Amino acid sequence: MDGKAAGHRLSGLAARFGLDWRGEDVLLQGVSTLQAAEPAPGSLAFLANPAYRRHLASTRAAAVLLHPAEAAVCPVPVLLSDTPYASYARIAALFEPKPNRPAGVHPSAVVDTTAQIDPSAHVGAQAVIGAGSRIAARAVVGPGCVVGEDCVLGEDCELVARVTLVRRVRLGRRVLVHPGAVLGADGFGIAVEGGSWLKVPQLGGVVIGDDCEIGANTTIDRGAIEDTVLEEDVRLDNQIQIGHNVHIGAHTAMAGCAAIAGSTRIGRWCLIGGGAGIVGHISITDRVSIAAMSLVTGSIEQPGEYASGTPLLPKRQWRRNAVRFGQLDRIVRALKTQEFVPHD
Amino acid sequence: MDGKAAGHRLSGLAARFGLDWRGEDVLLQGVSTLQAAEPAPGSLAFLANPAYRRHLASTRAAAVLLHPAEAAVCPVPVLLSDTPYASYARIAALFEPKPNRPAGVHPSAVVDTTAQIDPSAHVGAQAVIGAGSRIAARAVVGPGCVVGEDCVLGEDCELVARVTLVRRVRLGRRVLVHPGAVLGADGFGIAVEGGSWLKVPQLGGVVIGDDCEIGANTTIDRGAIEDTVLEEDVRLDNQIQIGHNVHIGAHTAMAGCAAIAGSTRIGRWCLIGGGAGIVGHISITDRVSIAAMSLVTGSIEQPGEYASGTPLLPKRQWRRNAVRFGQLDRIVRALKTQEFVPHD
Amino acid sequence: MDGKAAGHRLSGLAARFGLDWRGEDVLLQGVSTLQAAEPAPGSLAFLANPAYRRHLASTRAAAVLLHPAEAAVCPVPVLLSDTPYASYARIAALFEPKPNRPAGVHPSAVVDTTAQIDPSAHVGAQAVIGAGSRIAARAVVGPGCVVGEDCVLGEDCELVARVTLVRRVRLGRRVLVHPGAVLGADGFGIAVEGGSWLKVPQLGGVVIGDDCEIGANTTIDRGAIEDTVLEEDVRLDNQIQIGHNVHIGAHTAMAGCAAIAGSTRIGRWCLIGGGAGIVGHISITDRVSIAAMSLVTGSIEQPGEYASGTPLLPKRQWRRNAVRFGQLDRIVRALKTQEFVPHD
Repeated sequence: MDGKAAGHRLSGLAARFGLDWRGEDVLLQGVSTLQAAEPAPGSLAFLANPAYRRHLASTRAAAVLLHPAEAAVCPVPVLLSDTPYASYARIAALFEPKPNRPAGVHPSAVVDTTAQIDPSAHVGAQAVIGAGSRIAARAVVGPGCVVGEDCVLGEDCELVARVTLVRRVRLGRRVLVHPGAVLGADGFGIAVEGGSWLKVPQLGGVVIGDDCEIGANTTIDRGAIEDTVLEEDVRLDNQIQIGHNVHIGAHTAMAGCAAIAGSTRIGRWCLIGGGAGIVGHISITDRVSIAAMSLVTGSIEQPGEYASGTPLLPKRQWRRNAVRFGQLDRIVRALKTQEFVPHD
Repeated sequence: MDGKAAGHRLSGLAARFGLDWRGEDVLLQGVSTLQAAEPAPGSLAFLANPAYRRHLASTRAAAVLLHPAEAAVCPVPVLLSDTPYASYARIAALFEPKPNRPAGVHPSAVVDTTAQIDPSAHVGAQAVIGAGSRIAARAVVGPGCVVGEDCVLGEDCELVARVTLVRRVRLGRRVLVHPGAVLGADGFGIAVEGGSWLKVPQLGGVVIGDDCEIGANTTIDRGAIEDTVLEEDVRLDNQIQIGHNVHIGAHTAMAGCAAIAGSTRIGRWCLIGGGAGIVGHISITDRVSIAAMSLVTGSIEQPGEYASGTPLLPKRQWRRNAVRFGQLDRIVRALKTQEFVPHD
Repeated sequence: MDGKAAGHRLSGLAARFGLDWRGEDVLLQGVSTLQAAEPAPGSLAFLANPAYRRHLASTRAAAVLLHPAEAAVCPVPVLLSDTPYASYARIAALFEPKPNRPAGVHPSAVVDTTAQIDPSAHVGAQAVIGAGSRIAARAVVGPGCVVGEDCVLGEDCELVARVTLVRRVRLGRRVLVHPGAVLGADGFGIAVEGGSWLKVPQLGGVVIGDDCEIGANTTIDRGAIEDTVLEEDVRLDNQIQIGHNVHIGAHTAMAGCAAIAGSTRIGRWCLIGGGAGIVGHISITDRVSIAAMSLVTGSIEQPGEYASGTPLLPKRQWRRNAVRFGQLDRIVRALKTQEFVPHD
C-alpha cells in the first residue's frame, strides 16, 4: 500500500471528485484491496469487479468506494460512484509516489548538438539523444533510453527507462512508453532475388497520437514508405508486435503479446485479447473484440466479438478429439453417403 | 566445448559427487554431447534423453555419464548416476568459465547517493542504480542495467546485462535475471471515463523468491495495489509475460513466450508449455501441466495435463477440416434430427 | 517520403539496374506508394502486390515500377521489371538516408582492454565491449549496445542500438541486429534434484551466418554444449524466440513472435508464419511453410504448407462449435454404433 503521511478525509475525496459518501468521515492514507486492507493506517478499498463482492462483508478497509447499488451491505463507510473503477483511478493517483525527475540533462547522458531539449524536460542517466531530435516541455527521457535521429517527444511524454526510439518516431503529448519498448525499428521487408533474400529499405516513420501508452518490450516498426500510425488514446500492453504500416484507430486497447502484421488497419475502440494475432493487409472495423489467442485471417466488417481455437481439455480427452478434428471432413462426407453403417 | 587446462579425472568426479564409475580413469577436460565429442581433449558426454541413445555406440567421448541401466552397451568408461541429467548439471558447472565480475562500482555507472551497495557487490559499466535501492553481498548488476527506485537485490543475485528493475522490485537470494527482462513496469490497468481511457495507477511492487531464474526479454509487471509474487525456485524462460498481481507457486517452470494475465494464481510445481496463455482472475492448482500454445480460460482444480488446439496438417487437408469445425454444431444437430439423409 | 535533393532520372535508374522504361524521362526524388504519391517532388511508386492494382489508374506518382504485364494500363511513365519488388528494394536503397556512424569509439563507450576494435568500426555512445571480443572492419555497434565476452562481429555488421550479445556470440559478415535483441543468453536448462530445480550450465555459443537479419527484441539462446546456429541469409522478424542448440538452415525466414524450442533443426528456405510454435528435438525439412500461429509437434519430412488451428468465427457461433469439439470423439463413436437415433 502506498500513502502520504497527511492522507485524505473521506469527505474531502467526495467533494474533490463530486461523489456522495456515507458513514464516519475517516482519514484515508492509501488505497487497498477489499481482502488485504489492514486496519491501520486507514485505507480506501474499492469494489468494481463483481468477482470480489464476497470480500466486502469482511473487509478491514476504513472505507470502500463502490456503486450505490452495492452500498447497502457494506460494513464500513462508503464513497459512492456510478463508475467506481474510474473513480478509483482518479483517487489512487493522489496516493501515487512520483519519482524525482528534475528538469535538465544528466551529466552522463549524451545529447547530439543538433537535438533540441526543452529546459523543463528531463534527460536521465546514460540516455542518448540523436541528431535532429526534439524533446518538448516537461517530457521525461528515463535512464538508459536511446532516442535516435529525427524523433519528437511531445509535451509531458515519458519514456520510463531503457526505451529505444530508433528513427523518425514522433510521439504526441502525454505518451507513456515502458521499458524495453522499441519504436521505429525496420519493418520486416524482404524480396527474393537470385537465390537469396534482398532487404527492402524501410523509409517511413512511426506516429503515435496523444495519450497513448506502450507496454514493456512492445515493438512498433517504422513504415516501409509511409508511417506506422497509432491514433490518440491507443493502449498497448507488454510484448505486443505492430508491423510496418499498421494503422490503429483511436481508443483501441490490446492485451499482452498480441501481434498485428504489416499494413493492416484496425478501427477505433477495438479490444484485442492477449496473444491474439492479426494477419497483414486486412481491415478491421470499429468496436471489434477479438478473444485471447485467436487468429484473424481476413477483414472484419461487422462490430462484435470474434474467437477461434478450441477449449482446454484434459490431455487424453483432448488428444482423442484432436485426432477426430483431422478426420472431420472425411467423416462428414462419409455421413452424407451413409458410409457410417452400424456395427451390427 | 568449454574446459580448463587442468581437467578432472573420472575417479575424482565420482568421488566428488558420490557416484560409481567403471573403466579406465581418463582425464576429462570438458563436457560434450555423445555425437559431437572429439577424441582430444578428452571430454565427458552424457545420456539423459532416450532419443539420443542411438549415438552411444559410436561416441568418441572419453567417458559417458549415464544411468546404470544404460551402462552395459557403452563402449567407453562410464560414470553412473540414477539422475544423470542432474549429475551432468553439477559436473558441467566445474567446467564453466566464469566472467570476471570484481567487487566494486564501475566508474561509468551512476549510483544515487541514497542507494546502498554492499562492498562485495559488482555494479557494471553504464549501470544506473536509483534512489533507496539496496544491493546485497556478492550481487552482480551487469553492464547497462537500470535498477530504479526502492529495489532490493538479495545476496548472490545476478542481473546479467541490460536488465530493468523499474520500481519497488525485491529479489530474494541467488535470483538470476537475463538481459532485456523488465520487472516492475506498470500493469495494464485502464478504465473508461467520458469517452476515453483513464490510466489506473499501479502502486504495488514485484517480489521474487530465492533461486528464481527469469529469462531474456521476459516482463513481470508490478501489482496494481498489492505485489506480483513469484515464490522460490520459479523458473521462467525467455519472452514470458506475467501480468499484475499474478502469484506463482514455488518450483513452477514456464517455457518461452507463455503469458499469464492479471490476478491469476498458479500453484506449485506447475509446468506451463511454450506460448501457452492463461487468462486473468483464475486459479490453477499445484502440479498442473499445460501443453504448448494452449489457452486456459477457467480455473483448474485437478492436477494433471491439459491441452487445447488442433493437430498440424498439410494445409489443404487442414482447411477442409477447419471449414467443418465451423459447421460442427449445425452438423451434430442435424444428425440428431436425421437431416443427414443418404444421397440415394 | 525520403529523398535526396538531386534525385534520379528514370532513364538513369533503368540504365543502372538494367531495366526497360517507357514514357517521359521524369526526375524522381523519392519513392512512394501508388495511393499516397504527391505530384511534387516527383516520386517513383511501385506495383508488386496485386491487391494494390486498383490504385494504379489514379496514382499521382511521377512514374511507376511494375511488371511488363501491368504496364499497358499505367497512366504515367513506367520502369519495367520482371521482379518489381526486388527492383524496388534496390532503387529505394538509393533514396535511404544513412545515419552518420563515423569510424572510432565514442568517448562514453566502455571497451575492455583485451577487445580488438578495427579502426574503421564505429562504437557508439554508452556501448560496452567485453573482454576478448573482436569488432571487424566497418562494423557498427550502435548506442547502448552491450557486447559481452568472447564475441565476434564480422565485417559490415550492424547492431542498431541497445542490442545485447551476452557471451560467445559470433556474427558473420553483414549481419544486421535490431534494438532489444538478445543473443547468447543462457538456454532454458533445468533438472530436478532433491525437490527443487538445479540449473544446467549453458556452455555453448551462438553462430550467425553472413547476411542474417535479427528483429527487435528477438532472443537467440546460446547452446547448452554445442552452438546454436543460423546459417547464412536467415531472416528473423521481431520478438522471435530461438531456443538453445536450434539449427536454422540458410534462407529461412520467420515472421514476428514465432518460437522454436531447443535442439530443433529447421531446413533451408522454410517460411515460418507469425506466432507459430515449433517444439523441441524435432527436424523440419527444406521448403516447409508453417501458417501463422500453428503449432508443430513432430518432425516434418515433406516440403509443403502446414497449418493448425480453427477459423475465426463470431463468438457465439464459435462457442457452440468449440463445445462440439470437446464431444467429437464421443459423437463419432456414437455414430459408429448408431446411437444417434432420430428423435421420432
